[in-house]
Amino acid sequence: MIGIALMGAGRMARVHASAIHAAGAKLVTVYDVVVPAAEALAAETGASVARSAQEAFDRPEVAAILVATSSDTHVELIDQAVQAGKAVMCEKPLAPNLSEAQRCVDALGSQAANVFLAFNRRFDPGHAAVKQASDRSRRDRRLGATDHYQPRSLPAPLGYIPKSGGLFRDMMIHDFDMARWMLGEEPVSVFSRGSCLVDSQIGALGDVDTACVSLVTPSGKQAVILNSRRTAYGFDQRIEAFGAAGMVISDNPRATGLKHFSGTSFGAPDRFRAFFMERYGESYRLEIEAFVGGLAQGTPATVNALDGLRAVYLAEAAGASLRLGKAVELKNNCEVTWDA
Amino acid sequence: MIGIALMGAGRMARVHASAIHAAGAKLVTVYDVVVPAAEALAAETGASVARSAQEAFDRPEVAAILVATSSDTHVELIDQAVQAGKAVMCEKPLAPNLSEAQRCVDALGSQAANVFLAFNRRFDPGHAAVKQASDRSRRDRRLGATDHYQPRSLPAPLGYIPKSGGLFRDMMIHDFDMARWMLGEEPVSVFSRGSCLVDSQIGALGDVDTACVSLVTPSGKQAVILNSRRTAYGFDQRIEAFGAAGMVISDNPRATGLKHFSGTSFGAPDRFRAFFMERYGESYRLEIEAFVGGLAQGTPATVNALDGLRAVYLAEAAGASLRLGKAVELKNNCEVTWDA
Amino acid sequence: MIGIALMGAGRMARVHASAIHAAGAKLVTVYDVVVPAAEALAAETGASVARSAQEAFDRPEVAAILVATSSDTHVELIDQAVQAGKAVMCEKPLAPNLSEAQRCVDALGSQAANVFLAFNRRFDPGHAAVKQASDRSRRDRRLGATDHYQPRSLPAPLGYIPKSGGLFRDMMIHDFDMARWMLGEEPVSVFSRGSCLVDSQIGALGDVDTACVSLVTPSGKQAVILNSRRTAYGFDQRIEAFGAAGMVISDNPRATGLKHFSGTSFGAPDRFRAFFMERYGESYRLEIEAFVGGLAQGTPATVNALDGLRAVYLAEAAGASLRLGKAVELKNNCEVTWDA
Amino acid sequence: MIGIALMGAGRMARVHASAIHAAGAKLVTVYDVVVPAAEALAAETGASVARSAQEAFDRPEVAAILVATSSDTHVELIDQAVQAGKAVMCEKPLAPNLSEAQRCVDALGSQAANVFLAFNRRFDPGHAAVKQASDRSRRDRRLGATDHYQPRSLPAPLGYIPKSGGLFRDMMIHDFDMARWMLGEEPVSVFSRGSCLVDSQIGALGDVDTACVSLVTPSGKQAVILNSRRTAYGFDQRIEAFGAAGMVISDNPRATGLKHFSGTSFGAPDRFRAFFMERYGESYRLEIEAFVGGLAQGTPATVNALDGLRAVYLAEAAGASLRLGKAVELKNNCEVTWDA
Repeated sequence: MIGIALMGAGRMARVHASAIHAAGAKLVTVYDVVVPAAEALAAETGASVARSAQEAFDRPEVAAILVATSSDTHVELIDQAVQAGKAVMCEKPLAPNLSEAQRCVDALGSQAANVFLAFNRRFDPGHAAVKQASDRSRRDRRLGATDHYQPRSLPAPLGYIPKSGGLFRDMMIHDFDMARWMLGEEPVSVFSRGSCLVDSQIGALGDVDTACVSLVTPSGKQAVILNSRRTAYGFDQRIEAFGAAGMVISDNPRATGLKHFSGTSFGAPDRFRAFFMERYGESYRLEIEAFVGGLAQGTPATVNALDGLRAVYLAEAAGASLRLGKAVELKNNCEVTWDA
Repeated sequence: MIGIALMGAGRMARVHASAIHAAGAKLVTVYDVVVPAAEALAAETGASVARSAQEAFDRPEVAAILVATSSDTHVELIDQAVQAGKAVMCEKPLAPNLSEAQRCVDALGSQAANVFLAFNRRFDPGHAAVKQASDRSRRDRRLGATDHYQPRSLPAPLGYIPKSGGLFRDMMIHDFDMARWMLGEEPVSVFSRGSCLVDSQIGALGDVDTACVSLVTPSGKQAVILNSRRTAYGFDQRIEAFGAAGMVISDNPRATGLKHFSGTSFGAPDRFRAFFMERYGESYRLEIEAFVGGLAQGTPATVNALDGLRAVYLAEAAGASLRLGKAVELKNNCEVTWDA
Repeated sequence: MIGIALMGAGRMARVHASAIHAAGAKLVTVYDVVVPAAEALAAETGASVARSAQEAFDRPEVAAILVATSSDTHVELIDQAVQAGKAVMCEKPLAPNLSEAQRCVDALGSQAANVFLAFNRRFDPGHAAVKQASDRSRRDRRLGATDHYQPRSLPAPLGYIPKSGGLFRDMMIHDFDMARWMLGEEPVSVFSRGSCLVDSQIGALGDVDTACVSLVTPSGKQAVILNSRRTAYGFDQRIEAFGAAGMVISDNPRATGLKHFSGTSFGAPDRFRAFFMERYGESYRLEIEAFVGGLAQGTPATVNALDGLRAVYLAEAAGASLRLGKAVELKNNCEVTWDA
Repeated sequence: MIGIALMGAGRMARVHASAIHAAGAKLVTVYDVVVPAAEALAAETGASVARSAQEAFDRPEVAAILVATSSDTHVELIDQAVQAGKAVMCEKPLAPNLSEAQRCVDALGSQAANVFLAFNRRFDPGHAAVKQASDRSRRDRRLGATDHYQPRSLPAPLGYIPKSGGLFRDMMIHDFDMARWMLGEEPVSVFSRGSCLVDSQIGALGDVDTACVSLVTPSGKQAVILNSRRTAYGFDQRIEAFGAAGMVISDNPRATGLKHFSGTSFGAPDRFRAFFMERYGESYRLEIEAFVGGLAQGTPATVNALDGLRAVYLAEAAGASLRLGKAVELKNNCEVTWDA
């Protein structure tokens, strides 16, 4: 049973602690700058508390480090863990901005392919089935459309907006990774629309809450991503892939198979699964299994630090496109082609 | 263009008049004992008014008679029309009770197979697709379940109950025909449950408003029919066929493809099509086409007077089962096996 | 019963002839430069043949002219019909290009609001329900996404491409009208992606077969339109409207309510309705009813020549955006803001 | 954390061991007559091995006994556990036949209401939502139809048939409990149809593989249960409740939200969840939570030994009805009203 040290004891760290347990791996120790948080999580899980990240790295029974701290500490912790010879899984985003993400990947060198970047949606069974179906079919003509709305019960608190990095880096980052993965080619151009339709204060803080992004690849494959910070009807996260062989949609799974009929309801299905453990709990478990399985077999990470870099690159380019009011060119080396 | 004389100018006659037009046949003349009704329908359709049934039969351009008068006149009109050498389509039921239906078929002799009995649901594209799928697949194991509920907007008026002949003869008659058709074998036993759950006055009038009937064939195929006089959510008429190869369901078609999402609605589909022209209009047109097409090609009626007799037989047997509280045996010659 | 003269006897003219009949109006006369086509349609419908357009305009029992000839003749026929004091319904597009459409509207002056432009999809019950739901709900945040794919059975023949005016003017024209109607505001910017993924010969002819267009309005409402010239699974024409109150989707209606279950099929629904009479037949009938009803009541056209102009304007702007590789600004007076 | 001793180490015992873990209770010890099986399960779960049932009952940290041994040992183990002052949950059926079930309940006396009978489907969120909706609505008119098909991948091995007790006691037992629960009244009559359509050897062994059972309550509520030993398309277990207020269906939940479109597939949904941990795993966890929660609060069992008795009574009555070819009367005290 592989031993894992968890960096962080916040919400995402707890998600990963459960997934480690469910995947049959062993949570050895927990580190968090907020010691009581680490102590609480350690007590619940039977793990020890590490008084520093280094103490966790030094434990011989720890084979892998799972980084789930705040975004601005990811790069340094990845670096230290790799130095200590440990396998690494890091929560998204790789880094809070493009220049740091680029610096991280440069520093990692050939190790970048071994750092597992936790884009959990790749492990969602529905989304993964779309990918498989797309790969099986002829790929000469594909429109991958990714929709994503935050649920009403989880409006982004306004205080959160300034430190979020903005909608493209914070929320659409998942969709950029999905689009790259589904398309199977790196986009060469991005064009964005963005509006403040949910809450004008979000606009006052310099962000948008409703956005539409269009991507295109060298062979002409197109992708569209739609995001909104709020939705009235729950967590809506669909993927639609269209091509010569047909179309595959990963639609929102339901809480149950219930259907309701009345004077105003004619077979109404049950609500969507709630954000985000009900909806994505299985993907977190499968993600840990993929990480641990890859370690056991010595295979490179399924999704790695380079994928993390490219998602951040797309997010910043999308922001630039919105700011500049024009399409922005994308380079394979993540070079910045825009100014102002 | 084949010429048709319509017996009756009531609601069902009007349905057939539209269907005759849509199917590209010609409505020549209309007869009804209520002369103003005949005149009104004739005026709307460009047909003439016949002052008697015989006058209609005597018209040389009339090749076929469509009987859509009240149930108690069907047998006599069929007889006259056949005597006059005309093709006949007759609205269901063949006769108001089993003894008259038997007498009609006896009198028709070999002509019974040529009298088209208007069980329109056989021509509904959804139901017909279930039949085709059932016939294609292995038939060794089949559960045909037919559900049927009257819509809320059309509760059976209480005054209608006594002359309706009761739920089994009036409402479930369609389902008996569907069950026979789907099973592809004559049932050998019928067992009924019946309750008054919609309106206790229906019970006071000696009828039931909620019923469940179970049938079985010699080879062990089973069928279940569920009926209710009222439903809260519209016209619900489904067929489900289950067998070794799988299952096929003819589900209720929708008014449109609309889906609604809100804080209380998560992809709710649009209402069912309304009873009964929106729901079954196409089946009436296809039925006339089958009738007219059969005449042109000289083929026997798709569904005939014998089918009409057998449906009435099942209805009376179901009523007897309910009255006697036991299963009732069915004979291939429609012999009455029950007493009291 | 209002009398209508039909200009044209081709495919669309036949659609309208059926719809005129179904809507209870009277087809008086048919004109077509191909006289045998006019004669055939006249014979089938009981209408007379007009030897010239003017002959049709001169008939006193003709109250309205329905123009369903080739696109390049629309402007002139509209002009003549209006001169003759007749009401006019014209098949889309108003004109083969923007300059002619502008000229037509200028010439019509105040009459432009009375010329009914036949964007039939506005009368589709599913699409219309989306519009109604959108109008009822709060409108401060809306993403109207319109998808449209041509069916496999109707690939655009290559010979048709050069004279079609291109995908934006020929196929997406409907979606531009839908987007304007759903948004309830005139877009101020258009951005297009276009690729040749279906057939490289379409590209050789200077057109695209797969396109994505993004629109935005002054208040920040966004719309996305996706088009493909071919689809593997039938005619796919969906509209999705998203806003503060929720989401409404006009999904593709089905041929029947059939659902299929087998070792490889777990409730698979029936095929979509076929292009385009099965899918849109009802909309053509309702469109004629709206036209005729408006005449009877003296109300302006539900959708008029100005709508026709604006759809052509959006189509040309979308083409320019694709050609120039940048977003194109839209003016309320349909002014051309792009060059090259 | 409540301590549980597990009687049995077979398939169902393993299901419960997982559920105990997931529900946050503690599995203290495992007993099985097959010692290696007990040892294996104990090793996997960290529990001890009990060398006898009594040894398990004697452990002070054991507050509750979970009986998951073969059916013929349930009655004795329940008796012993209750004697030892332990709380008891017992896997269905309560006993292999009616006389033993009756003897068990008689011996338990007032304790019968405290013995938790593990009808897990009552805890399935979809089925439970049907029950809640039924209870909320007016209850004067209800048709609860329960369908149940075994999946193709799990045909009943022929060797299993003789000791299974037959389809009614082995397979339909769940549906009898569901029907009683949904109806909210004890049925007063049962009528059965049964055929051998899946495998004639099942018939040779004296059982049926396809059955339909009809129940009715004193107030006229009707229920229909359909069972088949094999289905081509996976595990099909639906419940449909119909009443004055409308209808609620607990439909089969899907593996994912995937929808597939191609030349032969027009939005085909993903497969059903597989029998039975994927489909019912959550119900097992919620069941243990209900059991443990009830113990903590000192409330009677949600579903108890009397429910177990009544389900067996319905099963034997259904068998008698099939054998005798007539409806069988049911008594509130589970008296046998049939002979032969």
